[in-house]
This record gives sequence, C-alpha cells and structure tokens, in this order.
Amino acid sequence: MDKFPQIIADAVSARDEYCKWDQSKIIELLELIATKLDAASEELVSVAAKETHLTNPRLVGEVGRMSGQWRHMAAVLKNKEYLQVSIDLADSTTQPPKPDLRKSNIPIGIVGVFGASNFPFGFGVGGGDTASAIAAGCPVIIKANPGHPETSRKIFEIMMASGKQLNAPKGLFGLLESFEDGITLVQHEDVSAIAFTGSTTGGRKLYDLAQSRPVPIPFYGELGGLNPIFVTEEANKANATVIAQGFLDSVSLGAGQFCTKPGFLILINGSDIKQELSQLISKSAVHEMLNDGIRGLHNSKREEFSGLGYVKVLAKGPAMNSDVEPLTIFEITADDLLKNKDTSLIEMFGPTAVVVDCKTPQQALEVANVFDGTLASGVHGGTGDELIQLGIIDLLSRISGRVIMNAWPTGVAVTWSMQHGGPYPASTGSLFTSVGADSIVRFRRPIVYQNFAHDLLPDYLQDKNLDSYPRRVNGTQHLAAQ
Amino acid sequence: MDKFPQIIADAVSARDEYCKWDQSKIIELLELIATKLDAASEELVSVAAKETHLTNPRLVGEVGRMSGQWRHMAAVLKNKEYLQVSIDLADSTTQPPKPDLRKSNIPIGIVGVFGASNFPFGFGVGGGDTASAIAAGCPVIIKANPGHPETSRKIFEIMMASGKQLNAPKGLFGLLESFEDGITLVQHEDVSAIAFTGSTTGGRKLYDLAQSRPVPIPFYGELGGLNPIFVTEEANKANATVIAQGFLDSVSLGAGQFCTKPGFLILINGSDIKQELSQLISKSAVHEMLNDGIRGLHNSKREEFSGLGYVKVLAKGPAMNSDVEPLTIFEITADDLLKNKDTSLIEMFGPTAVVVDCKTPQQALEVANVFDGTLASGVHGGTGDELIQLGIIDLLSRISGRVIMNAWPTGVAVTWSMQHGGPYPASTGSLFTSVGADSIVRFRRPIVYQNFAHDLLPDYLQDKNLDSYPRRVNGTQHLAAQ
Repeated sequence: MDKFPQIIADAVSARDEYCKWDQSKIIELLELIATKLDAASEELVSVAAKETHLTNPRLVGEVGRMSGQWRHMAAVLKNKEYLQVSIDLADSTTQPPKPDLRKSNIPIGIVGVFGASNFPFGFGVGGGDTASAIAAGCPVIIKANPGHPETSRKIFEIMMASGKQLNAPKGLFGLLESFEDGITLVQHEDVSAIAFTGSTTGGRKLYDLAQSRPVPIPFYGELGGLNPIFVTEEANKANATVIAQGFLDSVSLGAGQFCTKPGFLILINGSDIKQELSQLISKSAVHEMLNDGIRGLHNSKREEFSGLGYVKVLAKGPAMNSDVEPLTIFEITADDLLKNKDTSLIEMFGPTAVVVDCKTPQQALEVANVFDGTLASGVHGGTGDELIQLGIIDLLSRISGRVIMNAWPTGVAVTWSMQHGGPYPASTGSLFTSVGADSIVRFRRPIVYQNFAHDLLPDYLQDKNLDSYPRRVNGTQHLAAQ
Repeated sequence: MDKFPQIIADAVSARDEYCKWDQSKIIELLELIATKLDAASEELVSVAAKETHLTNPRLVGEVGRMSGQWRHMAAVLKNKEYLQVSIDLADSTTQPPKPDLRKSNIPIGIVGVFGASNFPFGFGVGGGDTASAIAAGCPVIIKANPGHPETSRKIFEIMMASGKQLNAPKGLFGLLESFEDGITLVQHEDVSAIAFTGSTTGGRKLYDLAQSRPVPIPFYGELGGLNPIFVTEEANKANATVIAQGFLDSVSLGAGQFCTKPGFLILINGSDIKQELSQLISKSAVHEMLNDGIRGLHNSKREEFSGLGYVKVLAKGPAMNSDVEPLTIFEITADDLLKNKDTSLIEMFGPTAVVVDCKTPQQALEVANVFDGTLASGVHGGTGDELIQLGIIDLLSRISGRVIMNAWPTGVAVTWSMQHGGPYPASTGSLFTSVGADSIVRFRRPIVYQNFAHDLLPDYLQDKNLDSYPRRVNGTQHLAAQ
C-alpha cells in the first residue's frame, strides 16, 4: 500500500498541532468518541459477529468496555494526577544553590498500536492502547488485526468522524492493514512508541525490531501468560464445587481465548476438585473459536501436549458440533512438571487447561518457582492455610502483575488501580500497564524546565495555576483545590 | 574472576531477605551509609585525587553530593509517594461488578550498576544509581569503572560495613572489576535491571545485550548529549559578557568531562559574544583530564573535527603545561552544520565546544531541528525575543529531558524535581531519570492485589494503615495524615 508515507506525514503534522491542545479539548474528544461508539453499538456488534464467532452478549458487553475506556481516560485527564507536577522553588541559601525546577511530562510523539485478535473492541483499533495514547496527546497509527478487518474499519471511521467534528488534525488517527506496513511502522524514525497486544512469538519479533533501531523506542507488548491458580489443601476440602465451577467458567470464557485464562490449576491432594471437574464439565458449553488459524494453532498445541507420555485427559466437555472445540482439562503430576518444565509450561490459546497434582504444599511452592512471568496468578484458600503460611503469595508476587485471592483472572476491570502487565513474557515492559488509569503513563515523557519565565511554561507549571493541580512542592504533596 | 558465581548467589539470597525489610530499616541504612561516607571524606578525596586528576575542591564537593544522594533517598522513602498506592474499593452494583484492587509496587530484583569515569563519587560505586536501587529494596552488583579502582573499593567497603552494622544480608552489595564480569552481569538470568552511566558507544553495546536476552530487562543508560544552548539576537547585544563567561565556565568545569557540558552554543549574528569569548578565554584555566585514555579519545575527536574544511578555531585558552589540554572553542556556520549534520554533531568529551553562527532566528530553528535527543538544552534571552516567540522552546522540549533559561546545563541538582535523562541517545529510557527523587521509580515494579485478605497485604495497602500514606482511592487523591 503506497498510502503509508501519507499516513506518516499526516501524523507528523498532527503531532505538532495536537500536542498543543489543552486538556479540556482532549476530554471533549475522548467523550465524543465514547458517545459515537455507543451509538454505533448495534452495527459494530453485527459486523464483529460475522468476523469473529464471538457471541452477541459478549460483543455487546465489549463495546461497552471500549467506550468505557474512552470515558475512563477522560476521567484520568480530569483527575490531573497523570501530569505528575513537581516543583522545586529556587533556594540560593543552599550549597550548591538550588535552581527553580518545574517538572511534568509531555506527549511522547507518534504511537503505533497493534490491535489484538481476541478482543475486536476492547483491545482493537479503538481499544485501550489507542484511547490512552490519544488521551496522552499523541497521534496514533493502528495496525488492524487481520481477524476482523471490517470491524476495524468501522471503528476507525467513528474515530475519524469524531476528530473531524472537533477540527482535530486529519493525521490524528491512521489505519494500516498489511503485515508489511506493520513492520515499517515499528521501524519508522518518526514513530516514538509501540503498543502491542498479541502472542509472545509475534510480540517478541516486533520488540526486537523496535529495540534494534538506530534510535530504539519503548515497545509496550502485552503478550499473555499461563496465569497459574493455586488451591490450598484446605480449600479443596471446603470449596471443591465452587472452585471447580469457577475454574471451568473462567477457562471457557471466550472459548479460552483470553490472555488471562487460568491455564494451570495447581492442587494439593485435590481429588475433591478433580471429581467435581469431571462431573461439572458436561454442562460447560463453549462457542466457536475466533477463526480457523487460531483454532488450528490451538489444536496442534493441544495435540502436542496430549502426546506427552505423562499427560492424561482429566475431563472433556461436550462436543456441541464440529465447529466447536470442546473444553479439555488435562492432568499432570507436579513431579512430571518439575522434570519437564519446558514442554509442560506452554500456553494453549483456546478452551484447554491443565490441572497439576501436588503431594504437599512444599511441592506446590516448587511448582510456583518454575513459572515464568505472567499477567496474573492466584490462590484459593484462607489466611491460615498451610500453603499461604509457607509463603505462596511472595512467590506469586515475584512472577505476576496481578495476584488474586479466591477469584479468577479473566475479567480485567478498567479502573484506577488495574495492573495488566507483568514480568516477561507477560509483557515486554513490566513497569507499565495496558489497562487502567496508569496506562496513559506509557505515552508521556518527563521533562523539567529550569529557571523559566512563567509565561513560557505550560499552564500547569505556572505559580498562578498551581492550586488547580495535584502537585509536589519542595517534596511535599498538595491536593488540587476543589 | 571466579568470585562472580558467589556474588550472584549472595545477591539472590539477599534479594529474598531484603525485599521484606520495612521502610524504616531501609531509611536507617541509607542514612548510616551517608554518615559513614561523610566521615571518610578526607580519605576518599585523597585516594580519588591520585586516580583521577580531579581537583580537591571538586572532589570534596562531590563526596557531599554522594552522601547527599543517600540522604535524599531516605527523604524519598519518608515521603512515601513513591509507593504510588492506589485502591479501588469493591462495588457489586456496577456492570460488570468491580473487584477490590490494591495497587502499589515492589522491588524489581537484583540491579546491576555500571559506574561512570567522570564522577567517581556522584555516579560511581556509591552514586545515585546504587542509592536509588538500595532505597527501592533491591540488592546491587556494581561494575566499578576502571578509571578509579581504589576509590571504588573504598566506597564499597563503607557500604559493606554499613550493611553489616545493621545485619543486612551479605549479598546486598557486590563489586565487580573486570570487563568480562560486566558482560556476564548484563546477561545473567538473576539480574532484573541495569543502570549505566557512560558513553553512547559502550552503553548501546550493553543495551543491545540486555534487550536480546531470552528475558529482556530494563536497561537505564544515561549516555550524554550535545546540550545545545541558543542565544537570542537580543541577548547577544544585551548580555554578551555574562553569557560568554558563563559558557566558558560551564564548558571548562571538570575539564569539560561532564555529560551536561554545553557542547554547542548557537548564536544569531553573535559577534559581541564571539568577541568576548576570544578575550575572556585567556583567563579560563582547566585542569588535567581524568586519564590518558579519555584524553587520547578527546584529542583524536578534536583533531578530526578541526580537520573539517568548514571548521575554524574561534578561541583557545592558555596552555598551562603539557599535562593539560587547553580549552578550545571552534566555530562553524549554521549553513555548514545543516549541510554536514553527521560530521558536525559529535560529542567531544573534554574541554572543547563549538559556536554555531546563524544569520536569522529562523535559521536557528532549523539548527534546533537537527539535534538528536539530549540531556539538556537551553536558551538565553527574554520572553519577547524573536527566537522565543518563533517557538524555540517547543523544539527544545521535543529533544530534551531538561530545558534551561538564562543558565547553564552543568550542575544537576539532586532534588525532588530533577529530570536527568531524555530521548535517545541522551538515555536509553526517556521515561526515566537517573538523578532526583523519581530515580527510585526505575527499580520498583507495579503489582495489584485483587480481592485479598488484609492480613496478607503489605502494611501500606491495608485499610487500617491507609491514613499514613498518600494514596488514590477510587480515583481521588488523599494526603498522608501528618
């Protein structure tokens, strides 16, 4: 596509103009996009249903998530904390004397976004990465996922129409569709950051490209995880039915195509839960997978895994029809996992998960120790349970961006305190989150102005306006005036 | 050195123990190290003077900077904002229901630090990188700069003695001296982040190693910059003497071996300043350079630069004796710079800088546009001056971590609001700073606890303690109770 040079040129012009928009105008844009997305919900759902096999209620909910993310970003701007205003007043009495320093942050520049296959709305063309970059003051060029091109175009049109209505620069949004354009995007000298949601393999390749540029740029890849959930011996006895049902529900959500799917359930003498799983699975319906490519990849991984000598099938869901992959729960022992870490600890993206049998809490700790970085992990049990007393929380904290008690990792709330990321390979930047208020941080770069004439400073760094902003002055926090 | 495996093993044990230290105990350690460094000042200065050619007053000041950084980090912990506590209370009335989420951050793990050649104290074994990593709760393994091995060992002994006095784990500090050990450090699977201060060439090589690991890790490289300073046409007329003297003082500080040296002074019809420079330079004394290697590199770059057809020598300082490189100010025209960007825009690490002649403010803007990322930049002039009205501040903001008005970039205050970093090649991570309060952010990773029993949460996330911490609750800021 020879459109690419034009898209970049437009984005460069947009960058220089858009970074001067004040907060209130950006807020207006964010809220307008949210409104327009909601208004187009019915049409968006119907297009996406044709392209993805996702169910209607799920898609309706996900449009709400998408528009909600734009509104949440508007709230983040209104909150103003993301500006991280920090002022040091000059002090000539110290040795050396202290200069007047006024620190905040500015938009990082043009952001490239790679949309995900599994969430056409929430993590797609108009998803959280795009919303947070636009909120941060950055033009966005999006490489649409090939799994849902029409849906992507439709969302893009809505964003463009919103921009036009508010006289935003034309290049504020750009859309790419070809694989080659995606590669060029990551390598282009005018692109300042990349946000990516997808597989570890694909993400790592693009990450390597971004890091080996003459000028390397931040690459925020959200790649997934095995999301191991541990169950204490006590919880197995006390809550087997609830835990087994919760696990099946969480694994089968979206036909298992969630980056937060609990891929491994680690039990200690867990026969009660295993028995419940075997029985409850007969009622666990899943829907068709996203597309044939993803289904094929899942099936070949499942086949490879089931072919390992030490792997048993613990439970298998009903085969609805030939278009649907039935839910499959494998079983392995902790001994075998510990002996075969590399072949056992793999992500099967689809309606498949693994139960791990431990003999003792100590062995469960050993298992926790061999997991790589993951988006989420969790434990079912009570404070006094042996596994918890032995320190499972510390081990899970070390590998996870999010740790969960007596609940499941699927469902990533779009809120102020969410952390969706984690040590590699959960993400390529463990200090950042791709969901929640702090996702905006990725696209603003700190800068300090020293000894400046006030009329040349941004509004929020001038003495006369400071009251309106949360800020640190000489190391002391102050709230924004109400 | 076969000590390496033992140093890593000790650091791993230290990591697991030290991350459980509470804030008050870490503060005690930071303050004890500061006290012991001050107490050893005389000895440290005498050892460093032998190894580096730096002057006594400079070294005395720099020991104060070093100990001051440890005290400042203690103040950062007392302030508690670095914990970035954010709480979402559960809300079952929303759709989907909101879980209880408690977000903060935890130590990233073992940190490798590469000390700089030019600041044996401020950016050396006991410099800001080490202080901020220790404050963050991370063990540190330091690769000492070969330019001052005895100084490095002495500082290391003081940190070790401080740790011992407070029963810190033995592996909290580790010291490496060989080049090969430095490479192994960057690649070791148990190392979670690297902080580096040094040259662009060396830093980029290590950065590439860190990014191409099976598990990539953050590499915080502070690499330097050309730090261009612009002078408006009006300021040239009004303040020629002051500006010329300030420039010479800033360039000659530390014999020009500062990463914040103003390498380029950009004038618009600046004959007044050029005349002052020619005269004032006769009184600009510099001292010996750090060592023969750095001197040799500087001289060969200076020679190469002076050999370019369009380069003139504008002013040359007195040749004190054969051990001292005289201060050299080159002159080139903006036309030549714009035609020969790659050969003109080079860093000459030493007592050498370049004056650029522009004919118009517009041409000065063109010059600003061709600079790469830099730690600092600045402008001398008043708000109404043409260059400023035309938008030089926006252009400088785009390439700089710090922008300065009517002052000079050397002297990086250790304060709450400092930003020492910038777009590549100023640093390899433009979202971070290596000096000031926010430097601690580099070594803590966000994590959220979902639906947790309170007695399993860190102190600062439990309801009963929240009052003592600055925090965001459901998106609203609260100050810590006094």
